[in-house]
Amino acid sequence: MTQLHDLTLRGFASDNYSGIHPEILEAIVQANGAHQVAYGEDVYTARLQEVFVEQFGEGIEAFPVFNGTGANVIGLQSMLPRWGAVICTSSAHINSDEGGAPEYVGGFKLLPVATLDGKLTPDLIDQEAWGWGDEHRAQPLVVSITQSTELGTVYTVEEVRAIANHAHKNGMTLHMDGARISNAAAALGVPVRAFTRDAGVDVLSFGGTKNGMMLGECIVVLNPAGSTGLKYLRKTNMQLSSKMRFISAQFVALLSNELWLRNARHANAMARRLRDALEAGAADGSVPNIAFTQATQANAVFARLPLGVADRLRKSFRFYDWDEQTGEVRWMCGFDTSEADIDAFVAALKRELAAS
Amino acid sequence: MTQLHDLTLRGFASDNYSGIHPEILEAIVQANGAHQVAYGEDVYTARLQEVFVEQFGEGIEAFPVFNGTGANVIGLQSMLPRWGAVICTSSAHINSDEGGAPEYVGGFKLLPVATLDGKLTPDLIDQEAWGWGDEHRAQPLVVSITQSTELGTVYTVEEVRAIANHAHKNGMTLHMDGARISNAAAALGVPVRAFTRDAGVDVLSFGGTKNGMMLGECIVVLNPAGSTGLKYLRKTNMQLSSKMRFISAQFVALLSNELWLRNARHANAMARRLRDALEAGAADGSVPNIAFTQATQANAVFARLPLGVADRLRKSFRFYDWDEQTGEVRWMCGFDTSEADIDAFVAALKRELAAS
Amino acid sequence: MTQLHDLTLRGFASDNYSGIHPEILEAIVQANGAHQVAYGEDVYTARLQEVFVEQFGEGIEAFPVFNGTGANVIGLQSMLPRWGAVICTSSAHINSDEGGAPEYVGGFKLLPVATLDGKLTPDLIDQEAWGWGDEHRAQPLVVSITQSTELGTVYTVEEVRAIANHAHKNGMTLHMDGARISNAAAALGVPVRAFTRDAGVDVLSFGGTKNGMMLGECIVVLNPAGSTGLKYLRKTNMQLSSKMRFISAQFVALLSNELWLRNARHANAMARRLRDALEAGAADGSVPNIAFTQATQANAVFARLPLGVADRLRKSFRFYDWDEQTGEVRWMCGFDTSEADIDAFVAALKRELAAS
Amino acid sequence: MTQLHDLTLRGFASDNYSGIHPEILEAIVQANGAHQVAYGEDVYTARLQEVFVEQFGEGIEAFPVFNGTGANVIGLQSMLPRWGAVICTSSAHINSDEGGAPEYVGGFKLLPVATLDGKLTPDLIDQEAWGWGDEHRAQPLVVSITQSTELGTVYTVEEVRAIANHAHKNGMTLHMDGARISNAAAALGVPVRAFTRDAGVDVLSFGGTKNGMMLGECIVVLNPAGSTGLKYLRKTNMQLSSKMRFISAQFVALLSNELWLRNARHANAMARRLRDALEAGAADGSVPNIAFTQATQANAVFARLPLGVADRLRKSFRFYDWDEQTGEVRWMCGFDTSEADIDAFVAALKRELAAS
Repeated sequence: MTQLHDLTLRGFASDNYSGIHPEILEAIVQANGAHQVAYGEDVYTARLQEVFVEQFGEGIEAFPVFNGTGANVIGLQSMLPRWGAVICTSSAHINSDEGGAPEYVGGFKLLPVATLDGKLTPDLIDQEAWGWGDEHRAQPLVVSITQSTELGTVYTVEEVRAIANHAHKNGMTLHMDGARISNAAAALGVPVRAFTRDAGVDVLSFGGTKNGMMLGECIVVLNPAGSTGLKYLRKTNMQLSSKMRFISAQFVALLSNELWLRNARHANAMARRLRDALEAGAADGSVPNIAFTQATQANAVFARLPLGVADRLRKSFRFYDWDEQTGEVRWMCGFDTSEADIDAFVAALKRELAAS
Repeated sequence: MTQLHDLTLRGFASDNYSGIHPEILEAIVQANGAHQVAYGEDVYTARLQEVFVEQFGEGIEAFPVFNGTGANVIGLQSMLPRWGAVICTSSAHINSDEGGAPEYVGGFKLLPVATLDGKLTPDLIDQEAWGWGDEHRAQPLVVSITQSTELGTVYTVEEVRAIANHAHKNGMTLHMDGARISNAAAALGVPVRAFTRDAGVDVLSFGGTKNGMMLGECIVVLNPAGSTGLKYLRKTNMQLSSKMRFISAQFVALLSNELWLRNARHANAMARRLRDALEAGAADGSVPNIAFTQATQANAVFARLPLGVADRLRKSFRFYDWDEQTGEVRWMCGFDTSEADIDAFVAALKRELAAS
Repeated sequence: MTQLHDLTLRGFASDNYSGIHPEILEAIVQANGAHQVAYGEDVYTARLQEVFVEQFGEGIEAFPVFNGTGANVIGLQSMLPRWGAVICTSSAHINSDEGGAPEYVGGFKLLPVATLDGKLTPDLIDQEAWGWGDEHRAQPLVVSITQSTELGTVYTVEEVRAIANHAHKNGMTLHMDGARISNAAAALGVPVRAFTRDAGVDVLSFGGTKNGMMLGECIVVLNPAGSTGLKYLRKTNMQLSSKMRFISAQFVALLSNELWLRNARHANAMARRLRDALEAGAADGSVPNIAFTQATQANAVFARLPLGVADRLRKSFRFYDWDEQTGEVRWMCGFDTSEADIDAFVAALKRELAAS
Repeated sequence: MTQLHDLTLRGFASDNYSGIHPEILEAIVQANGAHQVAYGEDVYTARLQEVFVEQFGEGIEAFPVFNGTGANVIGLQSMLPRWGAVICTSSAHINSDEGGAPEYVGGFKLLPVATLDGKLTPDLIDQEAWGWGDEHRAQPLVVSITQSTELGTVYTVEEVRAIANHAHKNGMTLHMDGARISNAAAALGVPVRAFTRDAGVDVLSFGGTKNGMMLGECIVVLNPAGSTGLKYLRKTNMQLSSKMRFISAQFVALLSNELWLRNARHANAMARRLRDALEAGAADGSVPNIAFTQATQANAVFARLPLGVADRLRKSFRFYDWDEQTGEVRWMCGFDTSEADIDAFVAALKRELAAS
């Protein structure tokens, strides 16, 4: 097969527009050849358990799956009886971007709470944390948070711990959607277990795809008492890979030599570079009429632009509207975003703003 | 990441113990770099539509997914109302090997029929094709057949057509699980559309993983009137890949330069070589006490061995018992099975039989 | 069996604390004896179709079921593909009081919108009416409203029509949860079809239990083009009654001689009597510190009481807190509420308020 | 409402063609009036617990629901994780007559086994009792038997115990569909707990509708360790009655003064009378060409008639074909079958056979 795509295409639409990091691709190549037992009894999946133990400590269990929706919906099923419900933010991926999979496949109700910054707090949780023992109410038994959030913000260790304590005190467990957990770890500068297992997270979706893998996410059971049956649920939910060695090998590469952190630090730094350049431009008048709508704590910048600017800018760089009504846009950086990408984009934005 | 696995491991357990064919791996490499729109709006997925049209003609639609269970269960949902049921063989993968996913995720009932050779017929279908209009009975609205079957047999063009006609005449549609459709095409020596679209199949799972891909199956809607909503069902069922270009590129490679047929012909030839050698040995006494339980029409050999022989043989070559009670075993060949593999295995079997 | 319950118990907790209206009970007695075909092929179910046609006109179809959750969840399934979602109020019974049945059994997502008075409007609907064609979003394909609402308010004919038009214009259909539809009809003083079928409602849950039946609700398909498969869905969802004659006969009695309206008018009048007495007391100082939180348009009164008063009052009359934090309570009247009940309750409330 | 139905209609189609036994109807009347807390916190539901304890001993829990499909599917959910499967007979009601509710609502797979007489045995169970720990196979975790069976046969105490022991030994639990459990108890002449709780049944559907109730079945948890969450599952599965007092009061009446046994003994005796008369006729030549296909152990007679006879006979007495191909029919007797019904039917059958 010949290469079909335009190698100059770059943008800020999503970290899943990127390709495969070379070290990951090399891992796929290395894992190829000869025979390996299918469905997870291969040496790469065995090694995957070890690399996750290195990060999270003994006693955890890792279940690689195909994608983030699969990781979230299956992980949550393992935490919930059939009558359970999940408290999350309105902006949570499980609520807004999974096509109703939690309800259709998982059969569980989401209890969404509106937030300003994509982050739950014990007080916000309490808006929906009630009614236990009343069978007329789907029972709130799990809290799900996203780290880093869909709005580019990051929970501190203390914030996660406060939520975990609050959940546990009320008989609930804590799920973390970590599609961008590497970006959070890079942002916080602490070991990943500090804001997950040690802070009280019970089950984690550890993201690979958005951070340089071809595909693959991993359900990591940090507290085995809070999860049941993942071995079976993964298959029954159609997320058991036959040639699993190739997903596992990618994770082994990602978690080796700090590739996950190197990629995430770079993506975060590019978002920081973009934010800094735009803030400097706002200060000196070269980037007029821009407003930032969220803190830039990981690899995303959220801003509001004058109407029309985004559409013109998109002719050169693809990115998404976040709120068409208000002109809010989202710019995502990834492991493959370059300084030149940022600089070209800032220059283009300045031109469009000047022209508007 | 360094290579962890033993490159000398070979066996006959399953065609998904194999790795990635070099032309497929090269396609992944070629598809890498720069940005491509996620979730299927990339140029490789556009090209994938074309390569499937080349095989099946205009008017079809192709939906790549992660795995075979996903392809089957989602394809069937697109063919069924909520109260529908599926007539299949007892040995069908959907009935025996998908962990209850059809029932749990799809919510539909299977109506299994026992067969001797893994193949349905109009008469066998009629065992369960009744009760339309009676709401007490889950309504039989789809027939699902596997080509080549789980027992290594192959439907002829006429057999598929007879089933399709029978299904349609009774208001049902026809689904084909083509996890090994390439092996069937190679065996039949006719264009793949001859025994699918032209024979009346409505929806097809076209297998990639078992024939040299890293992962990936494709739901191919051959009759758009017989399928609804796959765009949504794929996402809601958690099988929408974000970096879809890498699954699509594999399919493009597989369907280019007849790689799918080359791989399948080779696998079939290796099974034939094994069967021939064993039959010759049975005739000359060097392979005593073996009985063949199915015809070898694609890439599998099913045989019955004296008790104990299989377990000893498995110390050198991994393969599966098919029926522990009777000593029936299954030997699968794949695109990567070599003549040397076969010869070594036959020699080892002769030794074990002699020793038993 | 002897009578076990205290015949003096009365209260304002819910209209389903009441028993069976004598005319309904007599209908059960009349329907008894001899044999009738099970599962709906009986003469009473045939007659039920006729009495619903008398109300809604030719071309409708009526499917009696056991309870309101069943009527709502099955009716909605008949309106939705597997990937559909339902826009409703946060306070809707389907969202707040059905134990997650819409998600668990129906598999569909609810898109709840906060309201002040339990009523949707086109503008409120637009908060969630977007994203069609985007498979990442559960597709909003049905709007569900409750008439009279869970907050005791009533949509006017024009309000229902505006919602129906808005829904249809956007490719959605309109469901009405009519658990208390009789109270709405009594309140509006127009034929029931004026604010349902003629206003554009596609599928209706017509309530029986809360208005004097022992049990029974009826899914009424007002627009057959907007609903599919109820015959099968009712059985597959476990709501097909075998001795259906006894549910149907109750509906026949309810809809004969205007019993449904007589009961509802009475219940509404009792709520009005309660509201009037309390408002008079608020004016003359005999009911101090009470605030009404909703209009009394059907058979409920919502009010805020000083903390502690509700609990003391409940020693004599059972009723529910609506919002424990704010002291908001709900008082429901039913077909069996008497003027004496109201007067005794008002007197008791005055005593408690004086003592507080 | 006036009486609409023909009071002379009688037949042998099903025990749910009958009406309400007078003692049950009187119980509904007695339970009427005043207020009772909805959803099961009423005095009749409290008393229902006691009458079931009288039959099954302390430590059991009873959950009344609307119908048999609800009782079976919800009871089984309470026994199964999401990945569980149920071994049953092919002729089991859950497999053949519940419209796919186990799969659609419950999400679990049935593993049906063919039988000659509707009864499982440890050996028959073993056809499907395997594959534990293999996630590719829906896990067989419950055995479900029907007592008396759909074929009119009855398990002895010893047979139930052997099945229970076999199930438990293999880590499975035992469910009994007791839609006609009263007929079994009457046939066996032992206390109902002897062939249920004491024999090792974990969860039971106790039938009311077919034995004289207007409607109502009861899930009885005999072994609380084998069932979880019924309080919630009943609501989430749409089977929680609001005016539950009226279902509970019926059960209280049914289980008082041995009404359940009186009704069942009578129905069984009527089936016996029919069988005896036909056997005598076969012996003396007045009932030629009849063959009995099942033992008559409860309230059903299964027989094969010359083709055409059944259709002619049905002009006077409704009953069902069991197997149209072979001419097998089913005649059910109920609490309301009279000796005159039997005698008239035998006479009519003799006339038709003579004419054929």
